[in-house]
Amino acid sequence: MKEMKLYSMPSSGNSYKVRLLLALSGRDCTIVDVEDSSAEIAAAKAAGRLPFGKAPVLELDDGRLLPESNAILCWLGEGSALVPQDAFSRAEMLSWMFWEQNQHEGVVAVRGALRFYPGRAALATPERMADLLERGHALLAVMEQRLAAHDWLAGERMSLADIALYGYTHTAGTRGGFDMARFARINDWIARIAALPGYVGLDG
Amino acid sequence: MKEMKLYSMPSSGNSYKVRLLLALSGRDCTIVDVEDSSAEIAAAKAAGRLPFGKAPVLELDDGRLLPESNAILCWLGEGSALVPQDAFSRAEMLSWMFWEQNQHEGVVAVRGALRFYPGRAALATPERMADLLERGHALLAVMEQRLAAHDWLAGERMSLADIALYGYTHTAGTRGGFDMARFARINDWIARIAALPGYVGLDG
Repeated sequence: MKEMKLYSMPSSGNSYKVRLLLALSGRDCTIVDVEDSSAEIAAAKAAGRLPFGKAPVLELDDGRLLPESNAILCWLGEGSALVPQDAFSRAEMLSWMFWEQNQHEGVVAVRGALRFYPGRAALATPERMADLLERGHALLAVMEQRLAAHDWLAGERMSLADIALYGYTHTAGTRGGFDMARFARINDWIARIAALPGYVGLDG
Repeated sequence: MKEMKLYSMPSSGNSYKVRLLLALSGRDCTIVDVEDSSAEIAAAKAAGRLPFGKAPVLELDDGRLLPESNAILCWLGEGSALVPQDAFSRAEMLSWMFWEQNQHEGVVAVRGALRFYPGRAALATPERMADLLERGHALLAVMEQRLAAHDWLAGERMSLADIALYGYTHTAGTRGGFDMARFARINDWIARIAALPGYVGLDG
Protein backbone atom coordinates (compact mmCIF):
# COMPACT_ATOMS: atom_id res chain seq x y z
CA MET A 1 0.00 0.00 0.00
CA LYS A 2 1.23 3.48 -0.83
CA GLU A 3 2.00 5.69 2.09
CA MET A 4 0.53 9.01 3.07
CA LYS A 5 2.85 11.87 2.09
CA LEU A 6 3.26 15.37 3.49
CA TYR A 7 4.72 18.08 1.29
CA SER A 8 6.30 20.09 4.07
CA MET A 9 8.40 23.26 4.23
CA PRO A 10 11.07 22.57 6.89
CA SER A 11 11.33 26.20 8.05
CA SER A 12 7.58 26.92 8.13
CA GLY A 13 5.34 26.93 11.18
CA ASN A 14 2.35 25.92 9.05
CA SER A 15 4.10 22.74 7.91
CA TYR A 16 5.51 22.14 11.39
CA LYS A 17 2.01 22.07 12.92
CA VAL A 18 1.23 19.00 10.84
CA ARG A 19 4.58 17.34 11.58
CA LEU A 20 3.93 17.95 15.29
CA LEU A 21 0.48 16.35 15.15
CA LEU A 22 1.87 13.35 13.26
CA ALA A 23 4.61 12.95 15.88
CA LEU A 24 2.27 13.33 18.86
CA SER A 25 -0.16 10.81 17.41
CA GLY A 26 2.54 8.39 16.23
CA ARG A 27 1.28 8.24 12.65
CA ASP A 28 3.44 7.15 9.74
CA CYS A 29 3.81 9.63 6.93
CA THR A 30 6.51 10.21 4.35
CA ILE A 31 7.77 13.78 4.68
CA VAL A 32 8.70 15.41 1.36
CA ASP A 33 10.78 18.51 2.08
CA VAL A 34 9.86 21.48 -0.13
CA GLU A 35 11.79 24.42 1.28
CA ASP A 36 10.91 28.04 0.45
CA SER A 37 12.24 29.07 -2.99
CA SER A 38 13.77 25.60 -3.61
CA ALA A 39 13.83 23.48 -6.75
CA GLU A 40 11.76 20.91 -4.81
CA ILE A 41 8.84 23.27 -4.18
CA ALA A 42 8.91 24.40 -7.81
CA ALA A 43 8.81 20.74 -8.91
CA ALA A 44 5.90 19.92 -6.56
CA LYS A 45 3.97 22.92 -7.94
CA ALA A 46 4.72 21.96 -11.54
CA ALA A 47 3.54 18.40 -10.81
CA GLY A 48 0.22 19.74 -9.51
CA ARG A 49 0.80 18.55 -5.93
CA LEU A 50 0.17 21.97 -4.32
CA PRO A 51 -3.44 22.89 -5.25
CA PHE A 52 -3.27 26.35 -3.66
CA GLY A 53 0.39 26.85 -4.59
CA LYS A 54 1.68 26.47 -1.03
CA ALA A 55 2.90 23.90 1.47
CA PRO A 56 1.85 21.99 3.49
CA VAL A 57 -0.24 19.60 1.42
CA LEU A 58 -1.20 16.11 2.54
CA GLU A 59 -1.30 13.48 -0.19
CA LEU A 60 -3.45 10.51 0.81
CA ASP A 61 -2.44 6.97 -0.08
CA ASP A 62 -4.92 7.10 -3.00
CA GLY A 63 -3.38 10.31 -4.38
CA ARG A 64 -6.05 12.77 -3.20
CA LEU A 65 -4.58 16.11 -2.10
CA LEU A 66 -5.52 18.19 0.90
CA PRO A 67 -4.00 21.70 1.25
CA GLU A 68 -4.12 24.15 4.19
CA SER A 69 -2.39 23.30 7.46
CA ASN A 70 -5.43 23.66 9.70
CA ALA A 71 -7.67 21.61 7.40
CA ILE A 72 -5.01 18.87 7.45
CA LEU A 73 -5.02 19.00 11.27
CA CYS A 74 -8.83 18.56 11.22
CA TRP A 75 -8.59 15.63 8.80
CA LEU A 76 -5.83 13.84 10.74
CA GLY A 77 -7.36 14.65 14.13
CA GLU A 78 -10.93 13.64 13.36
CA GLY A 79 -12.27 11.21 15.94
CA SER A 80 -9.25 11.66 18.23
CA ALA A 81 -9.11 13.16 21.72
CA LEU A 82 -7.74 16.36 20.12
CA VAL A 83 -11.20 17.19 18.75
CA PRO A 84 -13.61 17.98 21.60
CA GLN A 85 -16.74 15.84 21.78
CA ASP A 86 -18.79 18.77 22.99
CA ALA A 87 -20.13 20.67 19.95
CA PHE A 88 -19.55 24.13 21.39
CA SER A 89 -15.95 23.37 22.37
CA ARG A 90 -15.44 22.04 18.84
CA ALA A 91 -16.75 25.34 17.43
CA GLU A 92 -14.47 27.26 19.81
CA MET A 93 -11.54 25.18 18.58
CA LEU A 94 -12.36 26.25 15.02
CA SER A 95 -12.71 29.90 16.13
CA TRP A 96 -9.12 29.85 17.37
CA MET A 97 -7.94 28.06 14.23
CA PHE A 98 -9.60 30.57 11.88
CA TRP A 99 -8.31 33.43 14.04
CA GLU A 100 -4.84 31.91 13.76
CA GLN A 101 -5.00 31.98 9.96
CA ASN A 102 -6.75 35.33 9.64
CA GLN A 103 -5.08 37.39 12.40
CA HIS A 104 -2.17 35.73 14.21
CA GLU A 105 -0.30 34.23 11.24
CA GLY A 106 -0.40 37.42 9.16
CA VAL A 107 1.33 39.31 11.98
CA VAL A 108 3.30 36.96 14.26
CA ALA A 109 4.51 34.62 11.50
CA VAL A 110 5.02 37.41 8.98
CA ARG A 111 7.26 39.40 11.34
CA GLY A 112 9.24 36.23 11.99
CA ALA A 113 9.58 35.55 8.25
CA LEU A 114 10.78 39.09 7.57
CA ARG A 115 13.55 38.59 10.13
CA PHE A 116 14.34 34.96 9.25
CA TYR A 117 14.42 34.68 5.44
CA PRO A 118 17.33 36.72 4.01
CA GLY A 119 15.42 37.34 0.77
CA ARG A 120 12.74 39.31 2.61
CA ALA A 121 15.00 41.75 4.44
CA ALA A 122 14.25 44.53 1.94
CA LEU A 123 10.56 44.33 2.90
CA ALA A 124 11.30 44.74 6.61
CA THR A 125 11.09 48.53 6.80
CA PRO A 126 11.32 50.03 10.31
CA GLU A 127 7.71 51.31 10.06
CA ARG A 128 6.39 47.89 9.06
CA MET A 129 8.36 46.07 11.76
CA ALA A 130 7.16 48.51 14.44
CA ASP A 131 3.55 48.14 13.32
CA LEU A 132 3.80 44.31 13.31
CA LEU A 133 5.41 44.39 16.76
CA GLU A 134 2.57 46.39 18.26
CA ARG A 135 -0.14 44.33 16.57
CA GLY A 136 1.56 41.06 17.50
CA HIS A 137 1.75 42.01 21.17
CA ALA A 138 -1.99 42.79 21.08
CA LEU A 139 -2.74 39.39 19.49
CA LEU A 140 -0.53 37.52 21.95
CA ALA A 141 -2.40 39.34 24.74
CA VAL A 142 -5.64 37.72 23.48
CA MET A 143 -4.05 34.29 23.97
CA GLU A 144 -2.57 35.31 27.34
CA GLN A 145 -6.02 36.36 28.57
CA ARG A 146 -7.55 33.00 27.61
CA LEU A 147 -4.64 31.05 29.14
CA ALA A 148 -4.85 33.00 32.39
CA ALA A 149 -8.17 31.25 33.06
CA HIS A 150 -7.75 27.93 31.20
CA ASP A 151 -4.92 25.50 30.50
CA TRP A 152 -5.86 25.17 26.82
CA LEU A 153 -7.35 27.42 24.16
CA ALA A 154 -10.67 25.65 23.55
CA GLY A 155 -12.63 23.58 26.05
CA GLU A 156 -10.81 22.08 29.04
CA ARG A 157 -8.45 19.73 27.21
CA MET A 158 -5.73 20.13 24.66
CA SER A 159 -7.15 20.32 21.12
CA LEU A 160 -6.08 20.96 17.55
CA ALA A 161 -6.36 24.68 18.32
CA ASP A 162 -3.35 24.41 20.64
CA ILE A 163 -1.28 22.69 17.94
CA ALA A 164 -2.35 25.26 15.35
CA LEU A 165 -1.40 28.23 17.55
CA TYR A 166 1.78 26.59 18.84
CA GLY A 167 3.18 26.54 15.29
CA TYR A 168 4.14 30.20 15.19
CA THR A 169 3.72 31.21 18.84
CA HIS A 170 6.59 29.10 20.15
CA THR A 171 9.04 31.03 17.94
CA ALA A 172 7.39 34.45 18.40
CA GLY A 173 10.28 35.53 20.64
CA THR A 174 13.26 33.97 18.85
CA ARG A 175 12.11 34.53 15.27
CA GLY A 176 9.55 37.31 15.56
CA GLY A 177 11.35 39.44 18.14
CA PHE A 178 8.25 39.75 20.34
CA ASP A 179 8.74 40.42 24.03
CA MET A 180 7.59 37.08 25.44
CA ALA A 181 8.48 38.07 29.02
CA ARG A 182 5.10 39.82 29.02
CA PHE A 183 3.24 36.55 28.47
CA ALA A 184 3.84 34.20 31.42
CA ARG A 185 0.77 32.06 30.73
CA ILE A 186 1.73 31.59 27.08
CA ASN A 187 5.20 30.51 28.18
CA ASP A 188 3.67 27.95 30.58
CA TRP A 189 1.43 26.65 27.77
CA ILE A 190 4.46 26.37 25.44
CA ALA A 191 6.29 24.37 28.12
CA ARG A 192 3.27 22.05 28.58
CA ILE A 193 3.19 21.27 24.86
CA ALA A 194 6.97 20.82 24.57
CA ALA A 195 6.80 18.26 27.41
CA LEU A 196 4.25 16.01 25.65
CA PRO A 197 5.29 12.42 24.82
CA GLY A 198 6.32 12.19 21.18
CA TYR A 199 6.96 15.95 20.88
CA VAL A 200 9.28 17.10 18.10
CA GLY A 201 10.63 20.62 17.67
CA LEU A 202 10.55 22.72 14.52
CA ASP A 203 13.98 21.43 13.55
CA GLY A 204 13.57 17.89 14.85
CA MET B 1 -36.42 31.90 26.10
CA LYS B 2 -33.71 34.34 25.08
CA GLU B 3 -32.94 34.46 21.41
CA MET B 4 -29.70 33.83 19.60
CA LYS B 5 -28.02 37.14 18.66
CA LEU B 6 -25.58 37.99 15.91
CA TYR B 7 -23.30 41.00 16.33
CA SER B 8 -23.01 41.86 12.66
CA MET B 9 -21.27 44.60 10.68
CA PRO B 10 -23.76 45.56 7.92
CA SER B 11 -21.07 46.47 5.36
CA SER B 12 -18.81 43.45 6.00
CA GLY B 13 -18.65 40.27 3.92
CA ASN B 14 -17.61 38.27 6.98
CA SER B 15 -20.80 39.24 8.82
CA TYR B 16 -22.85 38.84 5.65
CA LYS B 17 -21.79 35.19 5.27
CA VAL B 18 -23.52 34.40 8.55
CA ARG B 19 -26.61 36.45 7.68
CA LEU B 20 -26.79 34.57 4.37
CA LEU B 21 -26.59 31.17 6.05
CA LEU B 22 -29.28 32.19 8.57
CA ALA B 23 -31.54 33.34 5.70
CA LEU B 24 -30.97 30.23 3.57
CA SER B 25 -31.67 27.95 6.52
CA GLY B 26 -34.62 29.99 7.82
CA ARG B 27 -33.24 30.33 11.33
CA ASP B 28 -34.35 33.03 13.74
CA CYS B 29 -31.64 35.27 15.09
CA THR B 30 -31.65 38.82 16.39
CA ILE B 31 -29.24 40.88 14.32
CA VAL B 32 -27.37 43.55 16.30
CA ASP B 33 -25.81 46.01 13.86
CA VAL B 34 -22.29 47.06 14.84
CA GLU B 35 -21.00 49.08 11.89
CA ASP B 36 -17.30 49.79 11.38
CA SER B 37 -16.07 52.68 13.59
CA SER B 38 -19.56 53.13 15.14
CA ALA B 39 -20.58 53.80 18.74
CA GLU B 40 -22.38 50.43 18.63
CA ILE B 41 -19.25 48.41 17.91
CA ALA B 42 -17.34 50.30 20.60
CA ALA B 43 -20.14 49.53 23.06
CA ALA B 44 -20.18 45.81 22.13
CA LYS B 45 -16.40 45.66 22.63
CA ALA B 46 -16.60 47.48 25.96
CA ALA B 47 -19.31 45.05 27.09
CA GLY B 48 -17.03 42.09 26.29
CA ARG B 49 -19.26 40.76 23.50
CA LEU B 50 -16.48 40.62 20.87
CA PRO B 51 -13.84 38.20 22.27
CA PHE B 52 -11.37 38.80 19.43
CA GLY B 53 -12.32 42.48 19.04
CA LYS B 54 -14.16 41.99 15.74
CA ALA B 55 -17.58 41.21 14.28
CA PRO B 56 -19.27 38.88 13.59
CA VAL B 57 -19.85 37.19 16.92
CA LEU B 58 -22.72 34.81 17.63
CA GLU B 59 -24.21 35.01 21.12
CA LEU B 60 -26.06 31.82 22.00
CA ASP B 61 -29.31 31.93 23.97
CA ASP B 62 -27.34 31.04 27.13
CA GLY B 63 -24.90 33.92 26.62
CA ARG B 64 -21.92 31.93 25.29
CA LEU B 65 -20.00 33.81 22.58
CA LEU B 66 -18.59 32.43 19.36
CA PRO B 67 -16.34 34.68 17.21
CA GLU B 68 -14.97 34.15 13.68
CA SER B 69 -17.33 34.03 10.71
CA ASN B 70 -16.28 30.63 9.41
CA ALA B 71 -16.43 29.01 12.86
CA ILE B 72 -19.96 30.41 13.22
CA LEU B 73 -20.86 28.88 9.84
CA CYS B 74 -19.54 25.50 11.07
CA TRP B 75 -21.51 25.77 14.31
CA LEU B 76 -24.78 26.77 12.62
CA GLY B 77 -24.33 24.34 9.74
CA GLU B 78 -23.40 21.27 11.77
CA GLY B 79 -25.58 18.31 10.86
CA SER B 80 -27.13 20.10 7.87
CA ALA B 81 -26.83 19.27 4.18
CA LEU B 82 -24.28 22.11 3.90
CA VAL B 83 -21.67 19.95 5.68
CA PRO B 84 -20.68 16.96 3.51
CA GLN B 85 -21.20 13.54 5.06
CA ASP B 86 -18.08 12.23 3.36
CA ALA B 87 -15.07 12.92 5.59
CA PHE B 88 -12.74 13.92 2.76
CA SER B 89 -15.25 16.36 1.25
CA ARG B 90 -15.67 17.82 4.74
CA ALA B 91 -11.89 18.31 4.98
CA GLU B 92 -11.87 19.90 1.50
CA MET B 93 -14.63 22.25 2.66
CA LEU B 94 -12.40 23.33 5.56
CA SER B 95 -9.42 23.75 3.18
CA TRP B 96 -11.38 26.29 1.17
CA MET B 97 -12.60 28.02 4.33
CA PHE B 98 -9.09 28.35 5.80
CA TRP B 99 -7.79 29.48 2.40
CA GLU B 100 -10.55 32.09 2.36
CA GLN B 101 -9.41 33.53 5.68
CA ASN B 102 -5.68 33.21 5.06
CA GLN B 103 -5.38 34.16 1.37
CA HIS B 104 -8.56 35.40 -0.32
CA GLU B 105 -9.89 37.72 2.39
CA GLY B 106 -6.58 39.50 2.93
CA VAL B 107 -6.46 40.42 -0.77
CA VAL B 108 -9.95 40.45 -2.31
CA ALA B 109 -11.75 41.87 0.73
CA VAL B 110 -8.93 44.20 1.66
CA ARG B 111 -8.83 45.80 -1.81
CA GLY B 112 -12.61 46.23 -1.61
CA ALA B 113 -12.33 47.84 1.82
CA LEU B 114 -9.64 50.25 0.67
CA ARG B 115 -11.99 51.43 -2.11
CA PHE B 116 -15.20 51.32 -0.07
CA TYR B 117 -14.48 52.85 3.34
CA PRO B 118 -13.64 56.57 2.98
CA GLY B 119 -11.41 56.46 6.08
CA ARG B 120 -9.02 54.03 4.37
CA ALA B 121 -8.42 55.99 1.18
CA ALA B 122 -5.03 57.23 2.43
CA LEU B 123 -3.83 53.63 2.68
CA ALA B 124 -4.79 52.88 -0.95
CA THR B 125 -1.49 53.80 -2.60
CA PRO B 126 -1.24 53.02 -6.33
CA GLU B 127 1.53 50.45 -5.68
CA ARG B 128 -0.55 48.65 -3.05
CA MET B 129 -3.70 48.66 -5.20
CA ALA B 130 -1.79 47.31 -8.23
CA ASP B 131 -0.22 44.55 -6.11
CA LEU B 132 -3.60 43.57 -4.62
CA LEU B 133 -5.16 43.57 -8.10
CA GLU B 134 -2.61 41.15 -9.46
CA ARG B 135 -2.72 38.87 -6.43
CA GLY B 136 -6.52 38.93 -6.38
CA HIS B 137 -6.76 37.88 -10.01
CA ALA B 138 -4.42 34.96 -9.23
CA LEU B 139 -6.58 33.90 -6.27
CA LEU B 140 -9.80 34.19 -8.26
CA ALA B 141 -8.16 32.02 -10.93
CA VAL B 142 -7.80 29.25 -8.31
CA MET B 143 -11.57 29.33 -7.76
CA GLU B 144 -12.23 29.55 -11.51
CA GLN B 145 -10.16 26.43 -12.09
CA ARG B 146 -12.09 24.44 -9.49
CA LEU B 147 -15.46 25.71 -10.79
CA ALA B 148 -14.55 24.81 -14.38
CA ALA B 149 -14.76 21.15 -13.36
CA HIS B 150 -17.31 21.22 -10.50
CA ASP B 151 -20.45 23.18 -9.64
CA TRP B 152 -19.34 23.76 -6.06
CA LEU B 153 -16.05 24.28 -4.25
CA ALA B 154 -15.95 21.10 -2.10
CA GLY B 155 -17.52 17.78 -2.93
CA GLU B 156 -20.40 17.64 -5.42
CA ARG B 157 -22.97 19.68 -3.49
CA MET B 158 -23.13 23.17 -2.14
CA SER B 159 -21.42 23.46 1.25
CA LEU B 160 -20.39 26.03 3.83
CA ALA B 161 -17.28 26.66 1.70
CA ASP B 162 -19.47 28.20 -1.01
CA ILE B 163 -21.14 30.52 1.50
CA ALA B 164 -17.77 31.48 3.00
CA LEU B 165 -16.24 32.32 -0.39
CA TYR B 166 -19.39 34.00 -1.69
CA GLY B 167 -19.11 36.65 1.06
CA TYR B 168 -16.35 38.66 -0.61
CA THR B 169 -16.28 37.12 -4.09
CA HIS B 170 -19.69 38.40 -5.14
CA THR B 171 -18.55 42.00 -4.64
CA ALA B 172 -15.01 41.47 -6.00
CA GLY B 173 -15.97 43.38 -9.17
CA THR B 174 -18.12 46.16 -7.76
CA ARG B 175 -16.18 46.82 -4.56
CA GLY B 176 -12.76 45.37 -5.28
CA GLY B 177 -12.41 46.54 -8.88
CA PHE B 178 -11.36 43.08 -10.08
CA ASP B 179 -11.98 42.19 -13.71
CA MET B 180 -14.71 39.59 -13.28
CA ALA B 181 -15.19 39.22 -17.05
CA ARG B 182 -12.20 36.85 -16.86
CA PHE B 183 -14.04 34.46 -14.55
CA ALA B 184 -17.10 33.04 -16.32
CA ARG B 185 -17.39 30.01 -14.03
CA ILE B 186 -17.26 32.16 -10.91
CA ASN B 187 -20.01 34.36 -12.36
CA ASP B 188 -22.18 31.27 -13.00
CA TRP B 189 -21.55 30.09 -9.44
CA ILE B 190 -22.49 33.53 -8.08
CA ALA B 191 -25.73 33.37 -10.10
CA ARG B 192 -26.51 29.88 -8.73
CA ILE B 193 -26.16 31.08 -5.16
CA ALA B 194 -28.13 34.30 -5.74
CA ALA B 195 -31.00 32.19 -7.12
CA LEU B 196 -31.34 30.01 -4.00
CA PRO B 197 -34.65 30.11 -2.10
CA GLY B 198 -34.35 32.41 0.91
CA TYR B 199 -31.31 34.26 -0.50
CA VAL B 200 -30.64 37.75 0.83
CA GLY B 201 -28.11 40.19 -0.58
CA LEU B 202 -25.43 42.05 1.32
CA ASP B 203 -27.79 45.00 1.81
CA GLY B 204 -30.97 42.96 2.22
